[in-house]
Amino acid sequence: MNQEPQTEAKTTPADRSQRQFNFSAGPAVLPEETLLEAKDELPVFDNAGASVMEISHRSAAYDKVEESAREHIKSLLDIGDDWHVLFLQGGASMQFYQAPLNFLTEGGSADYVITGRWGTKAIREARLVGDVNVAASTEEDDFAYVPDPADWDLNPDADYVYITTNETVNGNQITQDPVLDAPIVADASSEFLSRPMDLEGYGLVFAGAQKNVGPAGVTIVLVHDDFLEQKKDELPTMLDYGTHVRKRFNTPPVFPIYMVEKVTRWLLNMGGLDAIHAINKRKATLLYDRIAQSDFYYCTVDEGSRSMMNVTFRLNDPDLEDLFLKQAEQRGLMSLAGHRTVGGVRASIYNAMPVEGVEALVDFMDTFERTHG
Amino acid sequence: MNQEPQTEAKTTPADRSQRQFNFSAGPAVLPEETLLEAKDELPVFDNAGASVMEISHRSAAYDKVEESAREHIKSLLDIGDDWHVLFLQGGASMQFYQAPLNFLTEGGSADYVITGRWGTKAIREARLVGDVNVAASTEEDDFAYVPDPADWDLNPDADYVYITTNETVNGNQITQDPVLDAPIVADASSEFLSRPMDLEGYGLVFAGAQKNVGPAGVTIVLVHDDFLEQKKDELPTMLDYGTHVRKRFNTPPVFPIYMVEKVTRWLLNMGGLDAIHAINKRKATLLYDRIAQSDFYYCTVDEGSRSMMNVTFRLNDPDLEDLFLKQAEQRGLMSLAGHRTVGGVRASIYNAMPVEGVEALVDFMDTFERTHG
Repeated sequence: MNQEPQTEAKTTPADRSQRQFNFSAGPAVLPEETLLEAKDELPVFDNAGASVMEISHRSAAYDKVEESAREHIKSLLDIGDDWHVLFLQGGASMQFYQAPLNFLTEGGSADYVITGRWGTKAIREARLVGDVNVAASTEEDDFAYVPDPADWDLNPDADYVYITTNETVNGNQITQDPVLDAPIVADASSEFLSRPMDLEGYGLVFAGAQKNVGPAGVTIVLVHDDFLEQKKDELPTMLDYGTHVRKRFNTPPVFPIYMVEKVTRWLLNMGGLDAIHAINKRKATLLYDRIAQSDFYYCTVDEGSRSMMNVTFRLNDPDLEDLFLKQAEQRGLMSLAGHRTVGGVRASIYNAMPVEGVEALVDFMDTFERTHG
Repeated sequence: MNQEPQTEAKTTPADRSQRQFNFSAGPAVLPEETLLEAKDELPVFDNAGASVMEISHRSAAYDKVEESAREHIKSLLDIGDDWHVLFLQGGASMQFYQAPLNFLTEGGSADYVITGRWGTKAIREARLVGDVNVAASTEEDDFAYVPDPADWDLNPDADYVYITTNETVNGNQITQDPVLDAPIVADASSEFLSRPMDLEGYGLVFAGAQKNVGPAGVTIVLVHDDFLEQKKDELPTMLDYGTHVRKRFNTPPVFPIYMVEKVTRWLLNMGGLDAIHAINKRKATLLYDRIAQSDFYYCTVDEGSRSMMNVTFRLNDPDLEDLFLKQAEQRGLMSLAGHRTVGGVRASIYNAMPVEGVEALVDFMDTFERTHG
């Protein structure tokens, strides 16, 4: 206990006018250099006579931004022109309805694999459109693992199989891209562009940008040509993927897309998805190893299903959790509280979280355990 | 013709690394001070330890931004808690479908007043939902005027009457807020917060922010309590206005809302809607008076229906229009081309366009006429 005074000294409130280590689950940390670039480009962008927010979405200057963001994403995922990269609005929540509206047919059905809060929300919207089948669900086990695809109860004639590749709230992740009989529709929001993906089995992949790819306000949607052929007709214009595949139909969320262009360029410059994946594995290993080191902390998700992005854990003494979160905050380790529906601790360690941030968290966990363990 | 050499000398390309007078129809000019504030607040916002784009949408710091934007809008329009101010996504284009989805009932019908391109798009989406009646349309007259409400063919039992208070492409505006038997649903995109509104007759008012209120990526929706009672049930969650009235359901487009907070604060600080309305009238008068001064230019919209926001005009000699636009651009008068579907010239003179911008345009029009008239 002679460590305690030192500990208390270290909890002097961090200077919040400086950048902190930000573990927010989304909106989340962005690479600092992209923010400094955006700062430089205010109030005039690239000889456009105005900021990027003020120029026409039909201008050459904006075209270049959006096309560049699109090309970065295609290049990062190594996909060709059979994939369409759309920049839509409304987040994953809108996709929960839009995907079945376009692809769940009259007389057909879709298979849903439910591994957490987001999949649970998605299936609710699909039920408004048509027939759905729960192919697997781990709800009874508090979503503590991802069921083996071999055990999914799949209908080979399903219009699609719906999965959530990373459950942000529950902290689990599907790390192998499945290839099934039916095309896969995936909510990849909180892991998109954090690892190489093999898109072979997928028809539609969507992700709110505000985790690994940019700020809130734009949803990145990948849709494959073959899957598009299954699309229904006579849909509301804005909710029809075909509208956006054909052309830039409406005013896009310019500033969020402009930031996505920067973040994806940053990813390419660091060596692409293999490079960031290696770093992400290192960060996740650091943290999971620290949790496993003693009984003071424990994981909420089984080994093999743990998310590389959202590390959810608890303190063995739940009465200490509030103090843990408060002292972390004072040390400049921001937004570590678990989702309000599950509590506990959640460290979101997306692409832009530096290794130093995870090291600082591990260091704090050591100190906190020494003091209170 | 001895003016010509001087004129040519003046067309030395403007320095586009500096801010120009930006007449874009949207995304459009923003008050420079709001951009400089945003610049100052990168990469750290208001002692939040991160930029505004990176903090949780459930954090106190973000709450304050969104609530402040909401309060500014309510204060500017002088409305109380019977009105809900929502920050949605998808622009007016999404509202074209969302409004009838919520309010056009089975067995009921809606009246549509069509005064331009946007109303034409809106009614197409409504037809996917239910029965609509064209209460008035000026399509055969190229949308050159707004028909008198006394002549609208209205059904007193309509679920709502749909109007477009300002047609951005066609350059006409409804400047008197109608009060009818049925509640009004209004697309106010390109004139919202440019004048005081009397919301007495309205049930739902929406506006893409990217004209007078902020950057692209957020749609401001006002919905009245009484009208909400008419709302249908069992709607897709994200498309149900009730979802967003009840709580902040999903991740909002943080950065666009943050800019709306600044722009609406700027409006309040200058004296609110009466003050900006007076300035807007002055700018529009300057420009319409200049057009009327000779036969060289002419308006495309009849007197009494002309938009204060989007001043659409032509050159009597259409062969000169390209040169006019090119020389304007060289002088630092940006984005004056009419919409691609109608051609001609369009000067969008939204709130943030300074009087000096309109004076510079008038000056250029003088010079151009002297040279080519």
